[in-house]
Amino acid sequence: MFSGEKNNLKRSAPNPGGSLRNEMKICHFIFNKRKYWGKLENDLIYIFSGSRERFRGEEAGVNLPAVDRQAVKLLCPFSPTKIVCVGRNYALHAVELGNQIPEKPLLFLKAPSALILSGEPIVIPSQSDRVEHEGELAIIIGKQCRKLTLDDDPFDYILGYTCLNDVTARDCQKEDIQFTRAKSFDTFCPVAPFYETDADVSNLLVQTRVNGELRQSGFTSEMVFPVDFLVRYISNQMTLKRGDLIATGTPAGVSKLFPGDVCEVSIERIGTLTNPVICEN
Amino acid sequence: MFSGEKNNLKRSAPNPGGSLRNEMKICHFIFNKRKYWGKLENDLIYIFSGSRERFRGEEAGVNLPAVDRQAVKLLCPFSPTKIVCVGRNYALHAVELGNQIPEKPLLFLKAPSALILSGEPIVIPSQSDRVEHEGELAIIIGKQCRKLTLDDDPFDYILGYTCLNDVTARDCQKEDIQFTRAKSFDTFCPVAPFYETDADVSNLLVQTRVNGELRQSGFTSEMVFPVDFLVRYISNQMTLKRGDLIATGTPAGVSKLFPGDVCEVSIERIGTLTNPVICEN
Repeated sequence: MFSGEKNNLKRSAPNPGGSLRNEMKICHFIFNKRKYWGKLENDLIYIFSGSRERFRGEEAGVNLPAVDRQAVKLLCPFSPTKIVCVGRNYALHAVELGNQIPEKPLLFLKAPSALILSGEPIVIPSQSDRVEHEGELAIIIGKQCRKLTLDDDPFDYILGYTCLNDVTARDCQKEDIQFTRAKSFDTFCPVAPFYETDADVSNLLVQTRVNGELRQSGFTSEMVFPVDFLVRYISNQMTLKRGDLIATGTPAGVSKLFPGDVCEVSIERIGTLTNPVICEN
Repeated sequence: MFSGEKNNLKRSAPNPGGSLRNEMKICHFIFNKRKYWGKLENDLIYIFSGSRERFRGEEAGVNLPAVDRQAVKLLCPFSPTKIVCVGRNYALHAVELGNQIPEKPLLFLKAPSALILSGEPIVIPSQSDRVEHEGELAIIIGKQCRKLTLDDDPFDYILGYTCLNDVTARDCQKEDIQFTRAKSFDTFCPVAPFYETDADVSNLLVQTRVNGELRQSGFTSEMVFPVDFLVRYISNQMTLKRGDLIATGTPAGVSKLFPGDVCEVSIERIGTLTNPVICEN
């Protein structure tokens, strides 16, 4: 699988893709049977020499070796001890399912066993006749926090952002009332295999397409409770640990997935998450 | 803290507490600054020489060194990637909260960040005026499993059993409808610092006392969905991983906890979990 990978090694130009905000898409991968951290730019991965904690020293990217994205096996670059989701955080989505806009964030948990990466199939389980996509911006916690106050800056505790699909068996959700089972089937939490470190997430376009057709579309500025509010609020309900995910809610336009579909969650400045849909055997 | 511990070392009698079912209370602890696995009998811990996987070879317990329980620091002997809870699994408890008996297990998740051990305080958060105890038998998964069928024996996938208190902010639970927040505050998941490997759990008495006064009492035989059914059912909703916990539901008699209370969950043949209750500063 990894034969010939050395041939893909390239040298980066000085300061590739440098920007004022120092945005970087961080990824974790196997190359030549070894694990590395790196930064993704278009279809190239620039390989860091050290651990993730030492990225900042390499941000200029001068003379980093690079490899084609296709030549590596991407791994999940975060390990959540929990996945906290926020329901009904876009007003139009709350309304489309006949719900009221919540007065405070509506929290629920998704089982970490549901995690898959881009490219892996979303499997429709035998228990459901109506599995739907919910494309979302996800926050990755970078530093343990609890009980953040208005004096704390929630952004200090964020490692980065990624694309997440809060796949939901809508029929099970209605039947159970509790969201847990409907949202925790295996493969029901696709995430992109990278995270963006420094994007301004206050007004990003979040879109979900099925077979190329636009289904969901909204701006993060439409969130009922924005990113910093959510991190502070949730940290006051439970300790957030490094690697924990917060799924920030989905815009209007959720729709049913069928076997053979390809579902794509795209977030401006963050990237794209693509998963085929298959039926359980 | 560990000075003088060597003086506590004792030698076990041959086959201490041996029984036909080979019941053992397994614990994990720090002694003389090193981590060990062992088995707890009354107030003595018999120290295994090897890893947890090699217990079976030492079950006779001949000549194992022993140490007083008080002389060690007990650690949590399992690391759940998720805590799956079953709601309304004792009919009388469903009725006492005005709910119907469910037709299939009602599942929800508790955040692993809520875990504490026996002896540590349950902290009443500022968000709640009504925090209640829910004493429960917890199953610890020993081997990854998914989609167990009627041909599979769920007991093959169980590592053991322990006592768990599914502490609940009843007012938050009613307000949110989703159980997550009400049951995931820090300290809301006390567990005993050991597990029982081989108990017959079909008809055990589960009791919860507050300040010595009996509040909850029921037999596991009264469960709407018994232990083997639960493991098989949940494995068909999501992959269960080694160390995952399943809280099997609580008998009738839940009641409010106040600062200064001591809450005790006792399960026949398993043991006792004791936690003081304090108020958030």
